[in-house]
Amino acid sequence: MAEAEQYKESLQESLQQVIHLLNKHKLVEDLVHKQDMPRHALVESLVHKQNLAELQKKLESLHPADVAYILESLPLGQRLIVWDLVKAERDGEILLEVSDAVRQTLIAEMDSEELLAAAEQLDTDEIADLAPDLPKDVFQELLESLDSQNRERLQSALSYPEDAVGALMDFDIVTIREDISLDVVLRYLRRLGKLPNHTDKLFVVDRDDALRGVLPLKRLLVQDPESTVASVMSDDAVIFHCEDKASEASSAFERYDLVTAPVVDANNKLVGRLTVDAVMDFIREESESEMLSMAGLKEEEDLFASVWKSVQNRWTWLSINLVTAFVASRVIGLFEGSIEKVVALAALMPIVAGIGGNSGNQTTTMIVRGLALGQISAHNMKNLFYKELGVSLLNGLVWGGVLGLVAYLLYHNVMLGLVMMAAMTLNLLLAAVMGVAIPLVMTRAGRDPAVGSSVMITAVTDSGGFFIFLGLATIFLI
Amino acid sequence: MAEAEQYKESLQESLQQVIHLLNKHKLVEDLVHKQDMPRHALVESLVHKQNLAELQKKLESLHPADVAYILESLPLGQRLIVWDLVKAERDGEILLEVSDAVRQTLIAEMDSEELLAAAEQLDTDEIADLAPDLPKDVFQELLESLDSQNRERLQSALSYPEDAVGALMDFDIVTIREDISLDVVLRYLRRLGKLPNHTDKLFVVDRDDALRGVLPLKRLLVQDPESTVASVMSDDAVIFHCEDKASEASSAFERYDLVTAPVVDANNKLVGRLTVDAVMDFIREESESEMLSMAGLKEEEDLFASVWKSVQNRWTWLSINLVTAFVASRVIGLFEGSIEKVVALAALMPIVAGIGGNSGNQTTTMIVRGLALGQISAHNMKNLFYKELGVSLLNGLVWGGVLGLVAYLLYHNVMLGLVMMAAMTLNLLLAAVMGVAIPLVMTRAGRDPAVGSSVMITAVTDSGGFFIFLGLATIFLI
Repeated sequence: MAEAEQYKESLQESLQQVIHLLNKHKLVEDLVHKQDMPRHALVESLVHKQNLAELQKKLESLHPADVAYILESLPLGQRLIVWDLVKAERDGEILLEVSDAVRQTLIAEMDSEELLAAAEQLDTDEIADLAPDLPKDVFQELLESLDSQNRERLQSALSYPEDAVGALMDFDIVTIREDISLDVVLRYLRRLGKLPNHTDKLFVVDRDDALRGVLPLKRLLVQDPESTVASVMSDDAVIFHCEDKASEASSAFERYDLVTAPVVDANNKLVGRLTVDAVMDFIREESESEMLSMAGLKEEEDLFASVWKSVQNRWTWLSINLVTAFVASRVIGLFEGSIEKVVALAALMPIVAGIGGNSGNQTTTMIVRGLALGQISAHNMKNLFYKELGVSLLNGLVWGGVLGLVAYLLYHNVMLGLVMMAAMTLNLLLAAVMGVAIPLVMTRAGRDPAVGSSVMITAVTDSGGFFIFLGLATIFLI
Repeated sequence: MAEAEQYKESLQESLQQVIHLLNKHKLVEDLVHKQDMPRHALVESLVHKQNLAELQKKLESLHPADVAYILESLPLGQRLIVWDLVKAERDGEILLEVSDAVRQTLIAEMDSEELLAAAEQLDTDEIADLAPDLPKDVFQELLESLDSQNRERLQSALSYPEDAVGALMDFDIVTIREDISLDVVLRYLRRLGKLPNHTDKLFVVDRDDALRGVLPLKRLLVQDPESTVASVMSDDAVIFHCEDKASEASSAFERYDLVTAPVVDANNKLVGRLTVDAVMDFIREESESEMLSMAGLKEEEDLFASVWKSVQNRWTWLSINLVTAFVASRVIGLFEGSIEKVVALAALMPIVAGIGGNSGNQTTTMIVRGLALGQISAHNMKNLFYKELGVSLLNGLVWGGVLGLVAYLLYHNVMLGLVMMAAMTLNLLLAAVMGVAIPLVMTRAGRDPAVGSSVMITAVTDSGGFFIFLGLATIFLI
């Protein structure tokens, strides 16, 4: 049996083997190249072929998800050699598994015919996942090759935004009528011969495909075979609409521990189903894109993307930060006169700004999380503000006191120490207020608070910290 | 039927209703209090009771997960009023659903008897989840109340670290023998009358409980009832060991789209199963704790935690940042003479440090992610370094050039502009090198690179940025 502890190792091992074979392949090529003599065509091509055949055999033994992993772990040149060796009939499955960025590098190397062949191996919902990356003409040809039901499904799946249930659902539904007995259902399933992955319930529909209820396999198995479907089915199942937000569907999956759930249209007509693996992929992607966007990466980046592509992916964020840093710099510029007189201010000011930013980010992270879980609203806002102000006041007095003392010891100036302490406290209070307010205002304005809050809070606490500290210093020290 | 789009709303609505009832309750109490006259005991207690009864009815109509959500959304005082009203027999389930921080506030209010009663409603694997939060004496009593099989299970579940499969698994396993026919299995299941949640396969074991294979319900339903289990079962199922890392198990669940999987001990004896809902909870918790730790929150924080508790949760990180900020401040201190002469340096230096930090964090985020996915190893390290250095060089020359120009325009000093450009480029190169190196070294040292990398990279680019900029300025400007 396959054992879990071996996955990562065997996956790593597979990767190492592939790299080893690729290097052998490279060696032969280099050798021929370096010697710069008439190619020993025969010998070379023999060894060459042998290496590649071995590599191909290795790849065939791997699950498509594992091949995808290997492709993602290889620099572009090696990646394309491996991609060439993958049997054409597995192209589709593997394209589905790789990350968006890597998929683009693979598709760029395929001609229309190969792409068409790859897409034709897939289910309609899987084609829909691939469609945005396909060249227009290939997609058009693909669309024409489908029968009318699947064409309709594909077009409807593509009509929903990426974060809608309609874009996540698949069409692997087994439907039954409510007036038959369980025994008939059992015979029907045996005749079908195969059930779709993840099937944990059958969908009960009427003549017009309107959803009447669901029959969990668990009940089908334990109830009296003579009972009718209607008497055994559950009619308070969780159902979704195509337009529902995927994020809400995924909370429902977690909350109510679902494996599959029916998806209906506006007329309660069953159009597809949502499965836990699609939901799990969605959750994983969401949390990853949140993490990436918090660090200012626009989208998932191929580890081996070109310098130019990477720069584009990261530029928006850097330029925003440059602007905020420039504003902070101008705030300092206002007080150049004071700094000239008391140069210690220049050394101390980054501490005030920095700690404010850290503390503000802690607050914002709490609030963004509470907002995402829907736990924050008008009724508890006051409590939150008070709590954060309390935390900041305590931190400001304690850490500000410590640093005020340190500043006094370093520069033998009592007033400088007091200014330091006061500025720290005030900037932490500012951080608390803005740390709560910024995500709330962004949410109110219909924006995702997870994306920009951290830049904004840092901008405020930087400029604010410099202003408060240098301003107080100018008043009391100069 | 319950419809997904209504969840969040109806959940929000439920929360609003609960708050409304709580406020009415408060009003009555305040009234009696304010008037400061002999309490109209009868009237008061009547209205009082009515409000609370209504609230209780509302709570009873909600799913335990939804009650948990409401408890998490309420400040401590109101939370405890609601908690008192929840029927005792649901305490256990609800305690399982709330976050760790909120659970502690609820448990703190319960006496031993209540806790014991709550825990006794739960399955062994659920008790194990609760156990770390229970007072020692309650846990001891609980342990004694269990039968020997469950006591053993509980103790073994608790013996695994939180991130091991053994701590995530449950014991709801249905086992069969391989020499019987599917028809017998079907009759056996009907006699059982009920299957555990998420059952998508039965576990085939021999007399010694050693795992022989698994029988997916899908196959049980579609294959000929006369076939034996042995001929139909799958013997290359994915299995896990108790000691396996939960993170690896969860990648296997995602990779191979599993719903349940058997867990065996060192002798291949079946001891439990892992389900997709436990895995999904694990993934969610992991990504949340990563996000929290990136902002320097030690653990999940109750939104309504006391100021003191919050301060403790955030202090470690703030104090580390204070130290790094202090170091950066001392670096500036080294150059106070130069700043006194060219005060513009004070205004420009935070830009150099700040952009370095941002760029370094982008690099680190990429690397941490690649490490988590296992995509980075010796073979591609060189590629990564070159790529990140290329990105930094390009960014440094472009943005450094722009800011150098701006510095020149502001201060009419060509050399200052050139120093600015050179310092930006060098600090971005430093950020690239450290952004790759820090997570790699942390991983090599056996630490989680997601947790401390961001602080370290910022520390390096701050102190480094100040040093490079002020150092160059001292050489070329003073």
